[in-house]
Amino acid sequence: MKLEKIYKYIDSNYQNFIKELVRLVNQPSVSAKHEGIQECAKMVEQMLKTIGFSTIFIQEKKGNPVVYGELKAKEPRKTLLFYNHYDVQPIEPFEEWICDPFSGEIRDGRIYGRGVSDNKGNIISRLKAVQAFLETTGEVPVNIKFVIEGEEEIGSPNLQPIVKKYKDLFSADAAIWEFGGTDRHGRPIIYLGLKGVLSVELEAKGASRDVHSANAPLIPNPAWRLVWTLNTLKNEKDEILIEGFYDDVETPLTEEIKCLKDIPFEEEEEKKELALKEFLHKASGLDALKALLYKPTCTINGFMSGYTGTGSKTVLPNKATAKLDFRLVPRQRPEKIFRKLVKHLKSRGFGDIHVFEHGSTEPVKTPITDKFVQTVVKTAEKIYNKKAVVYPTSAGSGPMHLFRNWLGYPIVSVGCAHAESRGHAPNENIMIDGFVQGTKFIAAVIQDFASS
Amino acid sequence: MKLEKIYKYIDSNYQNFIKELVRLVNQPSVSAKHEGIQECAKMVEQMLKTIGFSTIFIQEKKGNPVVYGELKAKEPRKTLLFYNHYDVQPIEPFEEWICDPFSGEIRDGRIYGRGVSDNKGNIISRLKAVQAFLETTGEVPVNIKFVIEGEEEIGSPNLQPIVKKYKDLFSADAAIWEFGGTDRHGRPIIYLGLKGVLSVELEAKGASRDVHSANAPLIPNPAWRLVWTLNTLKNEKDEILIEGFYDDVETPLTEEIKCLKDIPFEEEEEKKELALKEFLHKASGLDALKALLYKPTCTINGFMSGYTGTGSKTVLPNKATAKLDFRLVPRQRPEKIFRKLVKHLKSRGFGDIHVFEHGSTEPVKTPITDKFVQTVVKTAEKIYNKKAVVYPTSAGSGPMHLFRNWLGYPIVSVGCAHAESRGHAPNENIMIDGFVQGTKFIAAVIQDFASS
Repeated sequence: MKLEKIYKYIDSNYQNFIKELVRLVNQPSVSAKHEGIQECAKMVEQMLKTIGFSTIFIQEKKGNPVVYGELKAKEPRKTLLFYNHYDVQPIEPFEEWICDPFSGEIRDGRIYGRGVSDNKGNIISRLKAVQAFLETTGEVPVNIKFVIEGEEEIGSPNLQPIVKKYKDLFSADAAIWEFGGTDRHGRPIIYLGLKGVLSVELEAKGASRDVHSANAPLIPNPAWRLVWTLNTLKNEKDEILIEGFYDDVETPLTEEIKCLKDIPFEEEEEKKELALKEFLHKASGLDALKALLYKPTCTINGFMSGYTGTGSKTVLPNKATAKLDFRLVPRQRPEKIFRKLVKHLKSRGFGDIHVFEHGSTEPVKTPITDKFVQTVVKTAEKIYNKKAVVYPTSAGSGPMHLFRNWLGYPIVSVGCAHAESRGHAPNENIMIDGFVQGTKFIAAVIQDFASS
Repeated sequence: MKLEKIYKYIDSNYQNFIKELVRLVNQPSVSAKHEGIQECAKMVEQMLKTIGFSTIFIQEKKGNPVVYGELKAKEPRKTLLFYNHYDVQPIEPFEEWICDPFSGEIRDGRIYGRGVSDNKGNIISRLKAVQAFLETTGEVPVNIKFVIEGEEEIGSPNLQPIVKKYKDLFSADAAIWEFGGTDRHGRPIIYLGLKGVLSVELEAKGASRDVHSANAPLIPNPAWRLVWTLNTLKNEKDEILIEGFYDDVETPLTEEIKCLKDIPFEEEEEKKELALKEFLHKASGLDALKALLYKPTCTINGFMSGYTGTGSKTVLPNKATAKLDFRLVPRQRPEKIFRKLVKHLKSRGFGDIHVFEHGSTEPVKTPITDKFVQTVVKTAEKIYNKKAVVYPTSAGSGPMHLFRNWLGYPIVSVGCAHAESRGHAPNENIMIDGFVQGTKFIAAVIQDFASS
């Protein structure tokens, strides 16, 4: 009964919720470019306060602020923590957007804008689910905590000491992670784990300045040097050639593989949307899914050297850089992989290449058999009236290990995105319907967790 | 006696010459970016007209205008042609300039600006040498022709049909090519040939849009594909791996090697200026010089893919491009090399890589034994009062073959740059002294050619 009232409140007020979401999207917060971070953190803190949360604005010497919010149930209760992030990815390539990336423009039932799916839509959806309890019942059935950080998109390099320092604040009985949504058939997706990630930058240097390319017989070319360096890292079969890279890789558990078989992997739709004839190495079906979730990777995110404008320029550049990320699976450790990378470069004769680390997180997961997982699955199937799609782990990354491995509670990731939300890409969007249903889902999770 | 008066005229008027040079530098004319081309061509034509040349503004359907100017001697005489170009290289990297690249700023006896050395300084120097004859003697001792094109910096892709069409206009008894200057000891440098060049762009394509890098196990990454492609083109020993690339390479003639031995190659100064401990593969002395002049090359001028801003971005790009130039030596043919490149890519499994040609020129030279060469060498040694440095060929490129191979006259390249003129790089400059002396040199070449 309580939930019926709450759903009604959400249905009557969702247009105001969307206005708040658009306001949040209007505020740029690109962590990679130090753009709008303080302003966005303050806006998020104010939103928590307005609903009734007591907040802490955690600003350490290093790193972007972490906004913490807490709302106690009237009686002693269990605690549910929400992990979110207010920072967003850069907007590039800007020219491919159909609207201003920070506009929050609404078209055909969708809200467009950088961060609307990852992760601002979920921030608002969760805050509004809590607000719905307060507005209709005057209380929350469990203690609610929010941790909203500002460096997720750059690998959360400064969250670790904060979790250590504020360990008690971050304690809980269970947590909902930042992302999730529905598949192409409206089935709710539930994620139970993350890959780790190690982000690095390689830099090759040549002469003290660019020179005319006529000098090529004598002057070292860092662009070539970087090509040869990168070529030693991965071959055309996608085998990562760093010695010992695969040493600690764990084979998926039988129960996980079983779970994979139930996942309706929509590969044709995916390929069609991306205009691909086939996936890499013709992977298909269960093999493709297994690769996506369990294969560690080494990806060039970008590279740059010399002249890249229109036409030609007979120049020999003096610098070349490449950004890479390694996605890691249980039990690979980012710090170990970094050391192996550095050793590899030296041993292959590329000790002159500078290697910078841009951040890392560890791989992590919560068992399918966990009670909280089972509660969320049941709630999802009730709300969406469809079988839930359970991913025993996911292809994405984040600092989940700080909560799951350190603080020990189960963590499940659900949210209000959809199959074409285009996270990290131009024209990121969510559907208004998905946002409303996702908000009801979170309210139901809070209630069902309270009674479980 | 005539030359004394001319030198005096140059000494009295050089500050006005520099004003004209600055005006020409102020007018951007970046052919690679279609920037200011028409304006610059018209300015150059006006400058020719003001001195007394009859001009033709050659504007074909395709390509930038070629400015032609002709000034007849009073009596039937030999004809000397000057080849120049009003277009310049792009200014990038902009942040490394100490002044506005189009300012023509004067500091410590140098004029700074894009194109001031390559090739606007020489345009003005040559025009003013001719003007000096007219102003002091009322005539020129030989017929003078100017061909000033606007696509040299992008490989002169449209000059060939123009030379064909206006063959008679471009006929002459000898020609002075666009570039040259003095070495670190003030010795005049004389170039007798050019390498050929073939400029291409390679493009790898992936999905229809950028995706989150979590998808790396399934989605092809064009950045990796381009790395692997480039890696098949050249190895770390600088050996170009395209089948048959070296097939037509001609061994330098004995008289050329002899000439090389006389070239005071200032390798320590060069290395110091570029902050290099050593040249590529520790080349030194005659070996380094031989490599510079006679080794064909494959240079990455630039490459670009994905995210290249500050920090990191977990993105998997959908496009990667690289710009390359091949420098060719006698008897390599650019069209043949292009075909071999395309064939190579197909045979190595990279038939999906798109290859665009941005332009090409053939290798070319005039024999050291030619009479006109001997005249210019003698004149140079008289003017600079130092032994001339004769390069039987040079590391640079240009469309010289259209004139030398097609129209058949000897061509020598001299000019008013200096050893640190930084052509194609930030802070391109010439010395005012070098400009004045270079102008006198051209006047003397005109006179000595007339009497030879």
